[in-house]
Amino acid sequence: MTARSAAIGQHLLADLSGVSPQLLRDSGALEALLSAAARAAGATVLGCHFHHFGSGGGVTGVVLLAESHMSLHTWPEAGFAAADIFMCGHADPRAAIEVLLAALEPAESRVEIVVRGAAVDSTAARPLR
Amino acid sequence: MTARSAAIGQHLLADLSGVSPQLLRDSGALEALLSAAARAAGATVLGCHFHHFGSGGGVTGVVLLAESHMSLHTWPEAGFAAADIFMCGHADPRAAIEVLLAALEPAESRVEIVVRGAAVDSTAARPLR
Repeated sequence: MTARSAAIGQHLLADLSGVSPQLLRDSGALEALLSAAARAAGATVLGCHFHHFGSGGGVTGVVLLAESHMSLHTWPEAGFAAADIFMCGHADPRAAIEVLLAALEPAESRVEIVVRGAAVDSTAARPLR
Repeated sequence: MTARSAAIGQHLLADLSGVSPQLLRDSGALEALLSAAARAAGATVLGCHFHHFGSGGGVTGVVLLAESHMSLHTWPEAGFAAADIFMCGHADPRAAIEVLLAALEPAESRVEIVVRGAAVDSTAARPLR
């Protein structure tokens, strides 16, 4: 693949089932986990924004990166979490998902990778940071 | 499709090429646009978090929703924007992307729709809000 045909970035979508409901309600732990995953990927965190729905409910959160973003949304009552990891430049989204999988220990996971900006001449596009 | 087999939500990934660079640098306009798109979809905005890279650079932003999230990352020098719209419950991500397409007027667009949580019994999962 030539530099000219390289894409802008990779977008990982991960459906995680059979996760501990207790963990999926712990907003603080999940925020720390996503930050650790971003660091493992070599990404730069610009900000973390998490919301807890309370009363045993789930968590919805995003981490804004210099290389795009990560998000996690949880449904503890179903043992389910949906993560997405979009990274451009030299950051490695696969390293980030490995950190999430190791910590959340889903009974089942389905990870889809979508190439973003495949038609863009990436030599004409500067990294975001 | 029975209620039992319904998914958690839909995740739209949109690659938009040939967009006005001036618009792709306007953080305030893009934040207002994503908020308008969320409202058009019937979603509830919990918070908007945008970062401008300065010096003619792009914008990276996320809108945290009660129904999950929207994001937009722009590369003005390539006329390119990458959007993602993940919505659960009754919010309609197609209505949101129509608002973005009408405002950004890309010369080319590629929209991919990924069903999230297809294996989850959605009757056991409460809407996030």
